[in-house]
Amino acid sequence: MAFFSHLKIRFGDIDRAGIVYYPRFMHYFHVAMEEFFAGELGVEYHTVIDTHRIGLPTVHIETDFSRPFSYGDNIEVEVSVLKVGRTSITFGYRVFKKGETEPRIVGHNVTVCIDMDSFEKQAIPAWLRQLLEQQMSAV
Amino acid sequence: MAFFSHLKIRFGDIDRAGIVYYPRFMHYFHVAMEEFFAGELGVEYHTVIDTHRIGLPTVHIETDFSRPFSYGDNIEVEVSVLKVGRTSITFGYRVFKKGETEPRIVGHNVTVCIDMDSFEKQAIPAWLRQLLEQQMSAV
Amino acid sequence: MAFFSHLKIRFGDIDRAGIVYYPRFMHYFHVAMEEFFAGELGVEYHTVIDTHRIGLPTVHIETDFSRPFSYGDNIEVEVSVLKVGRTSITFGYRVFKKGETEPRIVGHNVTVCIDMDSFEKQAIPAWLRQLLEQQMSAV
Amino acid sequence: MAFFSHLKIRFGDIDRAGIVYYPRFMHYFHVAMEEFFAGELGVEYHTVIDTHRIGLPTVHIETDFSRPFSYGDNIEVEVSVLKVGRTSITFGYRVFKKGETEPRIVGHNVTVCIDMDSFEKQAIPAWLRQLLEQQMSAV
Repeated sequence: MAFFSHLKIRFGDIDRAGIVYYPRFMHYFHVAMEEFFAGELGVEYHTVIDTHRIGLPTVHIETDFSRPFSYGDNIEVEVSVLKVGRTSITFGYRVFKKGETEPRIVGHNVTVCIDMDSFEKQAIPAWLRQLLEQQMSAV
Repeated sequence: MAFFSHLKIRFGDIDRAGIVYYPRFMHYFHVAMEEFFAGELGVEYHTVIDTHRIGLPTVHIETDFSRPFSYGDNIEVEVSVLKVGRTSITFGYRVFKKGETEPRIVGHNVTVCIDMDSFEKQAIPAWLRQLLEQQMSAV
Repeated sequence: MAFFSHLKIRFGDIDRAGIVYYPRFMHYFHVAMEEFFAGELGVEYHTVIDTHRIGLPTVHIETDFSRPFSYGDNIEVEVSVLKVGRTSITFGYRVFKKGETEPRIVGHNVTVCIDMDSFEKQAIPAWLRQLLEQQMSAV
Repeated sequence: MAFFSHLKIRFGDIDRAGIVYYPRFMHYFHVAMEEFFAGELGVEYHTVIDTHRIGLPTVHIETDFSRPFSYGDNIEVEVSVLKVGRTSITFGYRVFKKGETEPRIVGHNVTVCIDMDSFEKQAIPAWLRQLLEQQMSAV
């Protein structure tokens, strides 16, 4: 069962061409991932950083935008865990206009697990791996 | 000969992990593209939209981030034209920390040419195609 | 009875000093105003612009920030209508950390009513004035 | 002699109403202040935070916007030091469209000096006070 973050296209998200400025979707992907951690994994993303001292910087992004969004659109950002490596996690994102069944945006981000104190890559800790793998089998 | 946009990482570009929030680079890619139009193609990007009534929404992005940037870093964003199709243009981006020879970020964006009035896909007009193709042969 | 917009401080809202980048609160004020239009006035803000062809650009802002907010904070942005002039509307904003009774941020924005086609100042139309004045008497 | 930061209105700065989204000017004020530190005070703002461990969070803003800016406008943001208190600094900002003599935006921000480790208010250190006061007498 998929996790969805329910967002709304805001006045300031629109660019000179009258549609959503595409970098805003990278922000929405991140917001949706934050909500996924809190709502689905049961751990607030800020505690991952502040308490567990783990960071997940993005090292690769790849996204297709097939149809634009307009001001006022209600959107649903689906977040999924596509792959869990030794040090990397791949999150999948699909953005739907509310009420539609075909996503208008499909992408994935590869993030790598680092130690927030040394900024060195590190193996994903067991507790986080377990939470993420449960999501994968749950799909 | 490559075109470079000289930018600087700002206070507000930094995220909770102390490095540049990755969506900001998508903004910087766009800023660099705007400077590329003005400085290299000789046409201000806003006249492309406002006068020529042509839009170039992004339909595909793909970027690798190999090393992070910090607050205060001077960056150089190289913009190139990788491919010109009938209706699409692929822009390449490489981001260097000033003084370094290896890019820390490498990506490309595919944009599609649309009529700003109908929002329908259209063939790239001859004047724009010519400007873009000159860039390719110049590489 | 006051209207509140319930928002959450996001990863990308934080600046190099580890607190919310203050321009983000101006964005949150606007988001809260958009929610106020939809949830309290019963008219989506984008229809004000797109259908009624009325714009409300901000001409004056004034805000006090007494305590900072951190990543992950749940915030409540109270929106009120402080004054309705012939062509101007003054919106009041107070930002609370969820669970607190003292606002950490208090401000107001003066916006002026313009015709979206001519960009000329115009009297606030009767239907909008009525909606806004009901909010004032409701306080 | 005034300090000016030369900026350009970007594609992504524009909002649904076709003019600059007003929170963006608060970002531009900050960018201009960063350039003022580097170019006029001779100290990079990031070293203020990282090396001197001093922060300058904004506690009060007040700005008038008399005429809007459009995509592609070249702007000049004048930065001045209006007042230096024991713990607070008031920066003045005026935004001109390049070539115009009347500012379209006039504002000031009060910032307070804090210790970045304790986040407690502290007296402005002598070295910074001296740099700032030289700016005032220079006006």
